[in-house]
Amino acid sequence: MRDVTHPAAATRAPALGPEDAALAEELFAEIAARSPDTRGVSRPAWSAKETEILDYLTARAEAEGLVVTADALDNRVFCLPEDAGRTPYRLIGSHVDSVPVGGNYDGLAGVIAGLVCLIHQKRAGRGFARPLRVIAMRGEESAWFGPCYMASKALTGTLTPEELEAPHKGDGQPLSAHMAALGVDVAPIAEGRGLLPLDEIAEYLELHIEQGPLLVGEDRPAAVVTGIRGNLRLKEVRALGEPGHSGAVPRSYRRDPVMASAKLLARLDDLWAREVSEGGDLVITSGMMSTDPQHHAMARIPDSLTFSFEIRSQHPETLARVEAALQDEIARLTEETGVTFELPRPIRNAPAKVDAALHEALLAAMERAGQAPYAMASGGGHDAAIFANAGVPTGMVFVRSRGGSHNPDESMEVADLLAGAEILLAHVTTEGA
Amino acid sequence: MRDVTHPAAATRAPALGPEDAALAEELFAEIAARSPDTRGVSRPAWSAKETEILDYLTARAEAEGLVVTADALDNRVFCLPEDAGRTPYRLIGSHVDSVPVGGNYDGLAGVIAGLVCLIHQKRAGRGFARPLRVIAMRGEESAWFGPCYMASKALTGTLTPEELEAPHKGDGQPLSAHMAALGVDVAPIAEGRGLLPLDEIAEYLELHIEQGPLLVGEDRPAAVVTGIRGNLRLKEVRALGEPGHSGAVPRSYRRDPVMASAKLLARLDDLWAREVSEGGDLVITSGMMSTDPQHHAMARIPDSLTFSFEIRSQHPETLARVEAALQDEIARLTEETGVTFELPRPIRNAPAKVDAALHEALLAAMERAGQAPYAMASGGGHDAAIFANAGVPTGMVFVRSRGGSHNPDESMEVADLLAGAEILLAHVTTEGA
Repeated sequence: MRDVTHPAAATRAPALGPEDAALAEELFAEIAARSPDTRGVSRPAWSAKETEILDYLTARAEAEGLVVTADALDNRVFCLPEDAGRTPYRLIGSHVDSVPVGGNYDGLAGVIAGLVCLIHQKRAGRGFARPLRVIAMRGEESAWFGPCYMASKALTGTLTPEELEAPHKGDGQPLSAHMAALGVDVAPIAEGRGLLPLDEIAEYLELHIEQGPLLVGEDRPAAVVTGIRGNLRLKEVRALGEPGHSGAVPRSYRRDPVMASAKLLARLDDLWAREVSEGGDLVITSGMMSTDPQHHAMARIPDSLTFSFEIRSQHPETLARVEAALQDEIARLTEETGVTFELPRPIRNAPAKVDAALHEALLAAMERAGQAPYAMASGGGHDAAIFANAGVPTGMVFVRSRGGSHNPDESMEVADLLAGAEILLAHVTTEGA
Repeated sequence: MRDVTHPAAATRAPALGPEDAALAEELFAEIAARSPDTRGVSRPAWSAKETEILDYLTARAEAEGLVVTADALDNRVFCLPEDAGRTPYRLIGSHVDSVPVGGNYDGLAGVIAGLVCLIHQKRAGRGFARPLRVIAMRGEESAWFGPCYMASKALTGTLTPEELEAPHKGDGQPLSAHMAALGVDVAPIAEGRGLLPLDEIAEYLELHIEQGPLLVGEDRPAAVVTGIRGNLRLKEVRALGEPGHSGAVPRSYRRDPVMASAKLLARLDDLWAREVSEGGDLVITSGMMSTDPQHHAMARIPDSLTFSFEIRSQHPETLARVEAALQDEIARLTEETGVTFELPRPIRNAPAKVDAALHEALLAAMERAGQAPYAMASGGGHDAAIFANAGVPTGMVFVRSRGGSHNPDESMEVADLLAGAEILLAHVTTEGA
């Protein structure tokens, strides 16, 4: 607990304490117990399991005296009684669904952080500088249907008809059918009508576990996010060469897709190193790679190599530059090696800018919460990116987590969650922030 | 048909003609008809199917007046009646087995070329400069049990106990059991006792389809082989990194096995280019490559990449140099990237030297057969390598073939086979050669 007699105490934000930690622990444990998988948890997007979790949160929040409403997607929206119906409002949100065999913190941490802020103030008999709502959203994870950020896209009117009809990877039924089974009217979604009046939202704020190792490496519990990386994804690049006996085809007669692809990635890795050394923001990943298991052999020059290719950056111009370099290197390698490359239609997600003023305000809030201001980029996309790209001033807070994300080894300490929540609380309780 | 009034006719070798072509066509067609697969042919090593093929060849050769004997492996040995039992003898050989869904020419071409030489001379009432035998061997292909050159290894006493107990990839029964089922006494093989008195063999000669594109590219029907490339094989190299979210892990925190392996192969490809530009003999192949299909994803830095790695050269010192370079680059990349590489125990096959005098004699025979002398390396290993490494003076002839080898698209023209056979015939009919 911080020393409230400290000279700076007047500008200090409300400190979260053992009762808030106990509340967060309780919510994480109760929800994990309701959603076990063979390992970790599973909370399918647009499922009755989500509803069960949302019902539990609703009851728990109502027991604390909060007002809870269901929106058109049966997301749940929580607020203090005095803030009910007041606009414009600040919105803190994240999602409750998880990937299969997932971790308990991706998404849920942001919802619980928001609820901890509400309940802490409710218990203390205090309110917020401006009306505040917390939203617990459904379906964000792409693991179930392919599309991601489905709730925030539907709320902002940006879920495409194609996404709405994406088949569930288990039962093959479209997303629209799964939504309808939950009582959602899909007609306005199909028409691209946003379900939420965005002009009533003053700010969208999201806390999320960092999905990388930076805060662990930097020994910091939390950070303010500078921007959300956009990406360019090529799911299956196919390098096509000519098969042959590995001993009998001389170098000058070869068209070897593995060697050509190795050179392609090595050259792009060099470019990546240059970009980073010049201060650029870029990551490049080829996460899936395979020769054809039906035909490959140790003593056979492979006929093809298939690999995924993904680049991410906060800067659209960096994405464009690396995409152009990819095309250039492919053309050069085809000339040099005779190997051709078939590229799928790229999937593009634009970088999302956090609101500059809000970013500064969150850094100031971080300082008021007694933490050294620290900012970093978000590598993963989040519902926040959808709100930001829909024009809502948006900010994000990251919380240190070990074990990555989307797996049972996700490991966040509640003390770190509270550090992140204190940044949000410092912001939403400060007049003029 | 060549002009026999040509001044050089006296030194010309016997020319093969339409009757020989018809014989070869007949043998290829009859054997293909006896060994169909879903596509191409299948003649399993150490099988009753092999016996059926060998029985067919035996009957066909006996019908031409040749003497046929079965050796301790139930390989078949063919000769003119007057050469039966005479030593030392020249031996022309190859194998009758094929890979599954294989082509009709790999192995069989060499057997048929030898038989064409025997039958051509028998029909003409002529003999050979020195006693000649043709051997049709079993089990050469590694596709069935893993080990290759099984017959020639057993004949020369170099089949290892491990190879003798290698399980069949279909029924799991060891090679020894499959041999025993054919009536072969495996005891002397297990004891490493050679089944053939090698000191009785003056020369071992093998004709084989080229398994690469060089003769097609050079527009030549046949070539004399300069040497058989040895190889170093690493069946499964495992590059081990650290998994992570593809967007959330900055470059400096990554240990990406795909990127590190791409650099490794790209650097070895550069070394390869230098070796070749300096006149070296080298090929490098990574024929099988895969991230872990259980865990890989487009948005995940992969935890591992598995790939095969093979180098081949006629020169032991080149193999040693590239192996050392591989180790050096791995050490460097582990330092640079944090990715470690697990290497399996290497499989080594020493390069096989053709006999220098025999090589010259075959080039001279090629000239006497009316062909411009042309020599090239053998990329694949062959039974010839086993005889050569066992100390038998060995020579090889390659015949142009399209479509590579070990697949139904193998495509050799009988005219080219006869060109190769004429080189052999010119050699074995010349006194003092």
